Amino acid sequence: MAVYTDVGVDELAAFLSGYDLGELLAYKGIAEGVENSNFLLHTASGYFILTLYEKRVAAADLPFFLGLMEHLAARRLTCPQPVKNRAGEMLGELAGRPAAIVTFLDGMWVRRPSAAHCAAVGQALAQLHLAGADFGLKRANALSVEGWRPLFRLAKDKADGVQPGLSRMVETELSFLEQNWPGGLPKGVIHADLFPDNVFFLGERLSGLIDFYFACNDTLAYDLAICLNAWCFELDHSYNVTKGRALLQAYMRTRPLQASEWDALPVLARGAALRFLLTRLVDWFDVPAGAFVKPKDPLEYFRKLRFHQSVAGSRDYGLDASAK
Amino acid sequence: MAVYTDVGVDELAAFLSGYDLGELLAYKGIAEGVENSNFLLHTASGYFILTLYEKRVAAADLPFFLGLMEHLAARRLTCPQPVKNRAGEMLGELAGRPAAIVTFLDGMWVRRPSAAHCAAVGQALAQLHLAGADFGLKRANALSVEGWRPLFRLAKDKADGVQPGLSRMVETELSFLEQNWPGGLPKGVIHADLFPDNVFFLGERLSGLIDFYFACNDTLAYDLAICLNAWCFELDHSYNVTKGRALLQAYMRTRPLQASEWDALPVLARGAALRFLLTRLVDWFDVPAGAFVKPKDPLEYFRKLRFHQSVAGSRDYGLDASAK
Repeated sequence: MAVYTDVGVDELAAFLSGYDLGELLAYKGIAEGVENSNFLLHTASGYFILTLYEKRVAAADLPFFLGLMEHLAARRLTCPQPVKNRAGEMLGELAGRPAAIVTFLDGMWVRRPSAAHCAAVGQALAQLHLAGADFGLKRANALSVEGWRPLFRLAKDKADGVQPGLSRMVETELSFLEQNWPGGLPKGVIHADLFPDNVFFLGERLSGLIDFYFACNDTLAYDLAICLNAWCFELDHSYNVTKGRALLQAYMRTRPLQASEWDALPVLARGAALRFLLTRLVDWFDVPAGAFVKPKDPLEYFRKLRFHQSVAGSRDYGLDASAK
Repeated sequence: MAVYTDVGVDELAAFLSGYDLGELLAYKGIAEGVENSNFLLHTASGYFILTLYEKRVAAADLPFFLGLMEHLAARRLTCPQPVKNRAGEMLGELAGRPAAIVTFLDGMWVRRPSAAHCAAVGQALAQLHLAGADFGLKRANALSVEGWRPLFRLAKDKADGVQPGLSRMVETELSFLEQNWPGGLPKGVIHADLFPDNVFFLGERLSGLIDFYFACNDTLAYDLAICLNAWCFELDHSYNVTKGRALLQAYMRTRPLQASEWDALPVLARGAALRFLLTRLVDWFDVPAGAFVKPKDPLEYFRKLRFHQSVAGSRDYGLDASAK
C-alpha cells in the first residue's frame, strides 16, 4: 500500500484546472502500487486515477510508460488510458513530483487465479506483444540478465541469513544463466511485471491490465516465462500443470511461438525466477523508510527456481510439443 | 493511512450477495482512517465505502455509531448513510471482522481551513447537537475527565523524554481539571473528534461529516471546545481569533450557549487540549505493529494547552460576552 505524498485540495484543484475534467468532487489516497502515490479522483466527468511518481521511478522513463498505455489502448487492449491536459500533455507536475491522470478501470485482481484466469492472461499477454510491435519508443530492461549480477552484489553477503547456502546457489545459477541466456529470440515491448495484482477481472473476463512501470523492450518469451512463474504455482509453490497449459495454449493461439522460443522456455523461466528472487532479496534487506510495505518472501522464488531447474524440457510446463 | 485486512474478491462478492447493490465492479483499499480498514466499492448501484472494524473499535459500540449515522442522516445532517442488507441489518461480518457499508460522500477535507470553513463547522456541530437530542442509544465517553488519569499513567514515566518537565506539568493540569471540571452543563450526543480530516467541503460549502467512531454522550460545549482546538490554531500553534469568532458565532446562531457553558469555555478547552495531548503521548510510545501510522506530535497540544491556561476569560476566544 502506498501514499507517500499528501496532496492538498488547493494544489490539486489548481493542477486539475489545466484539464477538461470539470469540478473536483472528491479524492482519496488508495492503497495500491508500491512505487508511487495513487489517488482516486472524482470529478464532474467521472472517476480517474491520479499517480504521483516517486523517486523510484525515473522521470525520463515516464513518456515511455504513458505513451505505451496510450498506444495499447488505441489498439483496443484494455489498460488505463492517460488523460491529456488542455496543452495535449499526459505528464504534469503536482506536489513537486511528476504526475499523470489515467482513466479508472473496473475490475478486481484475483487472489487465487483459476485455469480460466490463466488462459485469459496468456491471451492478453500475446495481444500486448502484438500491439506493442509498432510502438515507437524504446526502453532497455535494467532487470534482464546483465542486471542480475549487480543486483546480487547488493544482497550476496546477507543471502545466507535468509537461508543457509542461498548465496552459493544463486551464484551458480547466475553463472549458468549468463552463459546460456538465449540471445536471438524475438524481441519487442514486454510488460515485465504481469502479476495477478496487475490484471483486473470481472468474473472470469479479463477487464484490463495495469501498472506498466516495468515495461521495456526485451525477449517476448521471457515475458511469458514471468507469467508462468507469477500465475501457475500454488500457495505451496508447486507448479500447476493445468494452469500452465491454459496460459501457454491461450498465448500461442494468439501469437504462436517459434521452435527456438519454445525450447528456451525452461531457461527463460529460470531467469524469471532468479530475477524476482534477486529483487526480493534486495528489498528484504532494504525496505525504504516510510514505505509502509511488507517485503515479499524471496524464498517463494527460490522454490520456483528449483522447479524450473528440475524440468526435463518445455513439455513439463503442461503442453506437448506436438500440440504447439 | 490504513488497510489492515486484505479482502479477496470471492469473499467480498459473497458478502455483497446479501445486499441489493448489484454486481461488484471494483474495490480499492483507501488510505483513510487510522483505526479501521476502508475500501472504496464500485457496484452496479454506484460508489460506497466498506469498513472492516479492527480490534481498536469495540464491536459492542458499533450499533451506536451506525445507528447515530442513520439517525443524523434522517435529520438531514450530511454524513455517510449506512446501507442495510436484505435482512435489514447495517452490520455484517467479512474476513472475520465486523463490517458495514456506507454511502460515498463527495467532498474533501481542508488542510488549511479558513474562517469561512470554521464557521461552517460551527454551524454543523450545533446542528449535530440538536439532531442528536432524540437519539435513543447511549455511549459513555471513555476519554472524558475520568479517563485521563489512567491514560496519563501509561505515558507518565516517558513523558519527560518528549519534553523535560512535561510529566509534572501534565500532572498539575490533570489535578486542576479534575477539581474544576464543570459537571452540570447540557449534555447530549457529541462527535468528540471533529478534526479537519473528518469534515468534507466542496469549496467553502460543508458537504458532510464523517468518522463517528468516537461519538458518545457528553457535555455539548466540550465538543465545541474540541473544535476550537482542532480548527482555530495556525501551523505555528498560535490561536487565530478570527477563526475562533467565526466558529463560535456560527455555532451559537444555531444553538445559543447558556451563560454557564460560555463561562466554562476556557476550562473545557484546557480539558480538550489535555485529552489530545494524552492520547498522542500514549500513541507516541505505542504505535501498534503493522499500523503504518506516523504518530502525531503531542507537543502541538501542549502548546495549545498553554494558550488556554493563559486566557483571561471566554471573550479571549474572539467573541465579546455581549455579542452572545
